[in-house]
Amino acid sequence: MNQESIISPFSDEYFMKQALEEAHKAFDEEEIPVGAIVVCNNRIIARAHNLTERLNDVTAHAEMQAITAAANYLGGKYLKDCTLYVTLEPCNMCAGALAWSQISKIVYGASDDKRGYTRFSPNPMHPRTEVVSGIMKEESANLIKDFFTRKRMSL
Amino acid sequence: MNQESIISPFSDEYFMKQALEEAHKAFDEEEIPVGAIVVCNNRIIARAHNLTERLNDVTAHAEMQAITAAANYLGGKYLKDCTLYVTLEPCNMCAGALAWSQISKIVYGASDDKRGYTRFSPNPMHPRTEVVSGIMKEESANLIKDFFTRKRMSL
Repeated sequence: MNQESIISPFSDEYFMKQALEEAHKAFDEEEIPVGAIVVCNNRIIARAHNLTERLNDVTAHAEMQAITAAANYLGGKYLKDCTLYVTLEPCNMCAGALAWSQISKIVYGASDDKRGYTRFSPNPMHPRTEVVSGIMKEESANLIKDFFTRKRMSL
Repeated sequence: MNQESIISPFSDEYFMKQALEEAHKAFDEEEIPVGAIVVCNNRIIARAHNLTERLNDVTAHAEMQAITAAANYLGGKYLKDCTLYVTLEPCNMCAGALAWSQISKIVYGASDDKRGYTRFSPNPMHPRTEVVSGIMKEESANLIKDFFTRKRMSL
């Protein structure tokens, strides 16, 4: 039995693996590899990865696109019964957007000491949003490290 | 000579008046009336107003759309030689986006004590971004007050 088969369906690890798949897509497209999904009633209703380079748009973070896509799917702008899984700690912009969405829960992988929202006070997230961190953090952080190592080597 | 004709071209008041025009469009479309423009070399390269209701999208603030539109016009994602004029103090999401854009200058009208970015520390804006506040603040604030008064009367 390999390690993948022991991840329970609908666990935070299960869904973070899906977000990590999105991050790998970003990596392959030479974007900083961050991926996100939105889950509602155990169904994935949005998938996105960072597209700031391709779209020439600093606002095209994985989380921003996932919020827009999830709201579009639901037909309403609030994500009150949803969970966002994202491989990297959201930045302040994304935390602000998540606060406006009133999302129920956020699960992130690696911490971002330089750009993460947890550097700011008061807490930028909505007071009713539950936050879980550190899920598959090594895989998420290693992918980003590999990306920048490869970038430096190609310079 | 009426009051409009004494506003010098290319002054902060001149451009804020254009942002206020955008806010009036939002008002007419039953959106919270906030408008923004981006100016580069004294030319308006982007105009936007809040569209969160029409687009069912919490990220559709005037500033976010103006950043995306300006980057699209310039063909690059950084707004280093640009100024954003916005009728209301940016929220934390928009401040985060403006920080990523490395915009040179931001001019806003009315303050937003509840949702404005200046409540947060450290300062969410880029350290090289100049910020000017209070330009045409009464007009900007009154439009928002009128909007909510009308909303309450129609309930």
